Amino acid sequence: MKIGICGATGYSGRELVRILLCHPKVEIAFLSSEQFSGKPFSDVFPEFRSRMDKICQKIDSISLNEKLDLVFLALPHTVSMKMAKLFLQQNIRVIDLSGDYRLPQELYEKWYHHPHQDAQNLSKVVYGLSEIFREKIKKAQFISNPGCYPTSASLGLIPAISKGWIELEGMVIDAKSGASGAGRNPSLTMHFCEVYDNIKAYKIGVHQHTPEIEQILSVVAKKEIHLDFVPHLIPIQQGILSTMYTRLKKRVSTSEILASYLEFYKNDSFIRMLPEGVFPQTADVKGTNFCDIGLHVEERTQRLIIVSAIDNMVKGAAGQAVQNMNLMSGFPEVMALQ
Amino acid sequence: MKIGICGATGYSGRELVRILLCHPKVEIAFLSSEQFSGKPFSDVFPEFRSRMDKICQKIDSISLNEKLDLVFLALPHTVSMKMAKLFLQQNIRVIDLSGDYRLPQELYEKWYHHPHQDAQNLSKVVYGLSEIFREKIKKAQFISNPGCYPTSASLGLIPAISKGWIELEGMVIDAKSGASGAGRNPSLTMHFCEVYDNIKAYKIGVHQHTPEIEQILSVVAKKEIHLDFVPHLIPIQQGILSTMYTRLKKRVSTSEILASYLEFYKNDSFIRMLPEGVFPQTADVKGTNFCDIGLHVEERTQRLIIVSAIDNMVKGAAGQAVQNMNLMSGFPEVMALQ
Amino acid sequence: MKIGICGATGYSGRELVRILLCHPKVEIAFLSSEQFSGKPFSDVFPEFRSRMDKICQKIDSISLNEKLDLVFLALPHTVSMKMAKLFLQQNIRVIDLSGDYRLPQELYEKWYHHPHQDAQNLSKVVYGLSEIFREKIKKAQFISNPGCYPTSASLGLIPAISKGWIELEGMVIDAKSGASGAGRNPSLTMHFCEVYDNIKAYKIGVHQHTPEIEQILSVVAKKEIHLDFVPHLIPIQQGILSTMYTRLKKRVSTSEILASYLEFYKNDSFIRMLPEGVFPQTADVKGTNFCDIGLHVEERTQRLIIVSAIDNMVKGAAGQAVQNMNLMSGFPEVMALQ
Amino acid sequence: MKIGICGATGYSGRELVRILLCHPKVEIAFLSSEQFSGKPFSDVFPEFRSRMDKICQKIDSISLNEKLDLVFLALPHTVSMKMAKLFLQQNIRVIDLSGDYRLPQELYEKWYHHPHQDAQNLSKVVYGLSEIFREKIKKAQFISNPGCYPTSASLGLIPAISKGWIELEGMVIDAKSGASGAGRNPSLTMHFCEVYDNIKAYKIGVHQHTPEIEQILSVVAKKEIHLDFVPHLIPIQQGILSTMYTRLKKRVSTSEILASYLEFYKNDSFIRMLPEGVFPQTADVKGTNFCDIGLHVEERTQRLIIVSAIDNMVKGAAGQAVQNMNLMSGFPEVMALQ
Repeated sequence: MKIGICGATGYSGRELVRILLCHPKVEIAFLSSEQFSGKPFSDVFPEFRSRMDKICQKIDSISLNEKLDLVFLALPHTVSMKMAKLFLQQNIRVIDLSGDYRLPQELYEKWYHHPHQDAQNLSKVVYGLSEIFREKIKKAQFISNPGCYPTSASLGLIPAISKGWIELEGMVIDAKSGASGAGRNPSLTMHFCEVYDNIKAYKIGVHQHTPEIEQILSVVAKKEIHLDFVPHLIPIQQGILSTMYTRLKKRVSTSEILASYLEFYKNDSFIRMLPEGVFPQTADVKGTNFCDIGLHVEERTQRLIIVSAIDNMVKGAAGQAVQNMNLMSGFPEVMALQ
Repeated sequence: MKIGICGATGYSGRELVRILLCHPKVEIAFLSSEQFSGKPFSDVFPEFRSRMDKICQKIDSISLNEKLDLVFLALPHTVSMKMAKLFLQQNIRVIDLSGDYRLPQELYEKWYHHPHQDAQNLSKVVYGLSEIFREKIKKAQFISNPGCYPTSASLGLIPAISKGWIELEGMVIDAKSGASGAGRNPSLTMHFCEVYDNIKAYKIGVHQHTPEIEQILSVVAKKEIHLDFVPHLIPIQQGILSTMYTRLKKRVSTSEILASYLEFYKNDSFIRMLPEGVFPQTADVKGTNFCDIGLHVEERTQRLIIVSAIDNMVKGAAGQAVQNMNLMSGFPEVMALQ
Repeated sequence: MKIGICGATGYSGRELVRILLCHPKVEIAFLSSEQFSGKPFSDVFPEFRSRMDKICQKIDSISLNEKLDLVFLALPHTVSMKMAKLFLQQNIRVIDLSGDYRLPQELYEKWYHHPHQDAQNLSKVVYGLSEIFREKIKKAQFISNPGCYPTSASLGLIPAISKGWIELEGMVIDAKSGASGAGRNPSLTMHFCEVYDNIKAYKIGVHQHTPEIEQILSVVAKKEIHLDFVPHLIPIQQGILSTMYTRLKKRVSTSEILASYLEFYKNDSFIRMLPEGVFPQTADVKGTNFCDIGLHVEERTQRLIIVSAIDNMVKGAAGQAVQNMNLMSGFPEVMALQ
Repeated sequence: MKIGICGATGYSGRELVRILLCHPKVEIAFLSSEQFSGKPFSDVFPEFRSRMDKICQKIDSISLNEKLDLVFLALPHTVSMKMAKLFLQQNIRVIDLSGDYRLPQELYEKWYHHPHQDAQNLSKVVYGLSEIFREKIKKAQFISNPGCYPTSASLGLIPAISKGWIELEGMVIDAKSGASGAGRNPSLTMHFCEVYDNIKAYKIGVHQHTPEIEQILSVVAKKEIHLDFVPHLIPIQQGILSTMYTRLKKRVSTSEILASYLEFYKNDSFIRMLPEGVFPQTADVKGTNFCDIGLHVEERTQRLIIVSAIDNMVKGAAGQAVQNMNLMSGFPEVMALQ
């Protein structure tokens, strides 16, 4: 299968290359990069020297003569919506890793502060949270790959919502992310000396992943959900830890809920439920497509506390994108991801 | 004034030395250390070479002939309660940085899993949260210095509770701490390779600072409070960031609440309220006795979100201890802390 | 092929498991651990949950009934020499990752401060620097796997020595290593707060890798070599960067030397020579078996400066061990290492 | 005394403010910043909130009516040479922290790739390595503050050269610096994810501090010196560790050389000589004006190995600048630096 990667020289693009190099069914036909066009990919990321020396091309210079099967868009939002359209017109399947197709037009424009320019395809897209929307994904031509925070939060919350354990009001998601989540563009905020030995909350009340999380959970709950989501920047490269606070509807033990999570995810190779009293850490999922989840019922306050860990670049971006490609293409879901 | 430091070669002890070396009214009479007795303090912490070369002594070898005015106990819990007694008997004032005198006996024994052996002094101790209990501290002979997490959480929550803005039920404290909080004893958990590039939640539901936080807030609220507190270990040296989620009783703006916090802390040099839309980061308080606080009213969910940052070793331990010593001794409260 | 790993719960053991799980010809028959015996490997390293849940055994409890083909010893030095003997007696091939069989008895006892207790096998061992001693390794029953620093230094220096470009006197190796090199045992030296945001030189003049480096280079040079080697501890997890300073015998350009290095390593998949003006960084080899090498001729001083980077846990330990196993077993040299 | 700081919102500028806020003889009259003009300094560096809230000004808008005594230039090189001239014309003393006045014109133009535009003042400047050129500095109107690497290297090497212990040929300086040395301008090279968990050598053979080091040492040796200097970037914020390799002229012990260093620096409060067998680490000098130095004579190779540690922002920049200001102004040399 021939695939292309647009935006290959960002962190998500790099991760796509890393994973797809090990995929036995995939041939990488092109790598696009505006900033580094004309350079070998391995000049941009020297770790790939001798493994991926292909020249990066400007997106405009990509010949669509050679039949492509699928394109990954690892582009900044607002850029993706221009490119998705073109590939879809050529009947090339698209997996978009940006935020451009994750929200309805109105919500998009409110939270991303930008007009949407491809409403037509917005109505056709399938939201690629693999474990939850697997059957739809299998038939999709066009996938909007979930955000990193929404993946981490919704995989932790959906079983409890779905099984009716928790109140739908008053949920709190306190999430901590490594610096790669902000992308590879230089900025003072991402300067080593500003991030190292430091932690901060940011974008409280205005982070664009808030409506995305609310939307997925609302679909599952079949009821509109509003919640609080506060992201934090921590001095690590890759990883998101989300700690979620919910209220139980009735008295129940940790082990009962654990059992129902195990049941919920029994066919999902990438979800690892941790035993009672054990909680995840990002180091254990680094470089993998796993989502580790730990649970705790706090009897004193009748709360269910859920902690989930993913690698924001893998399960939170490139890994889930490849998982979706596998589903769309009839390959084993875990291919190249183990 | 002559003071002594017991447990000088832990991280809190080191910080006490660092601060007190700059204190114009204090002479350090002794530094105790069981592990490093007989060695110069500057061999244990070479940063102090030429600044503090005093020999560390075993605690038993300290002559109480020379009149001491005050002793800081930077000892592990369960050890402090043995030493506090001895010094208090000699009419030497004591500031205890351990957890031994922060809780009533019953709660102590439940959460610390250890019998309390000095119930007598437990009834005489004053809890040293400087900004809140200043007048009592001024007259105290014996101070129990607050825990790092409780300091960070209660300074953030108390004005909102005190002014009646928030519901007393359902508060959530999600706290992130640097590794120095765990002390200087080697353990696999604190091995560089286990902490670096990693984040995890720990001791969910069983952390001994939970009842301490609940107790302070209950005193302020004049009503029993139960809440959820989840600590996290992040790969930084010093610093705690606490993100607190509370429910508002009524519709109110961020700026109104900000104004009432400013009023509440108007005489407190170490509390810095951040303007609307700005949130604290631990780097800004590193090495200082400041507590930085930012607020956000989330209208969608009627929540007040409060973020506070302290240096766990300074405002969360040694700095607040010196602040308390200043209060007890009639020195300017900020002496040696600016 | 059935293999066993002794000392599986150290950092080298973990890395062996990580690599061998992907090896199509290998079945892991046992994992030994004194400290964690009776526990699943994935309890010790939760990243392996669902991938390697085998129970760790005490080394004494390992049944040698089931025919083993090869054993990796990832044990502390002085322990390895007791175990190697036993396995070799049973005609089980052994790859020892400790320092126990890297030096002649006299040098060993001088630099390791410990009597050698298996002189017999010391005379039979083959030194496993794969690229240099490949033919001997192919026929070996017993391999002493090189130290991390010696691998990094000798791969950088050998071509220049072998081709006669440089003076054999006065070489300087300034090496910087991540913290995993010190092993997983807790110690104050490896406490997060002591390593983070810090760099230091250590063991100047007394590091046990000094004679190991001198020995390899002397074999290549056919002349006794003495040099200066200074190791440094830097706050990263995995990786060694060695900067080497040598004097040129005659005027020559960087590109000439580069060409001769490329020729020297033309059949070595794991050596990547960097183009003129480009120098390696440890991030580019992290998790891989690559050794990246950059060169610079400094005309002002007539020096050849060589910089090499490896992952100390992979090419500097477990990766090279598997490379050696592949060579000994007739598998493709790169199997499971790409 | 009234001083101004040009370029106050870079890392050196910040450090100048931090130090000068504690200086009892200094009043900060203005802070200039092109990028952040119009903003309070404490908006740019929130750690200064309530301690330094002065508004940053564009350099052009600074009124020279109010009599200034001294100006610190913490500007990028090539910018400094424009400003120094203006202040000197007004008879305002200048301490320049850039590289603009550290080299003779010809060398400057060769290594900085930029024409020098103030040759006139170049001939009047005094090189501000405080311990070595103290008497000249006391009388100076215009100081060129040394580079961070040159400070670290020359303080380590000068006593050995001055006392004639070592050969002047073949010296090697292997230096490791934290990321603040590269300044605060955003760039891909300084992106957190590129620096964290990584180490690399850079600018081998072309670093502009090479001729600066050679020049100082040549002055001391009264003979032209050429040497090898390789800088490395390590993932810490502040600090330089330099490991220096020199050849001894004759057999001598570590303790003899140590004694001669102690003698050499006997009046220098900021130089701390470490005892035999002990070597410096950057953590011990962080935030201080100390330079810690350790020595080792390697008998096997007849080398003297010298390791020095400084904080690149303090002794390597702002601290030494204030030390020079103290010398120029007749204040105690250590004022505000302890």
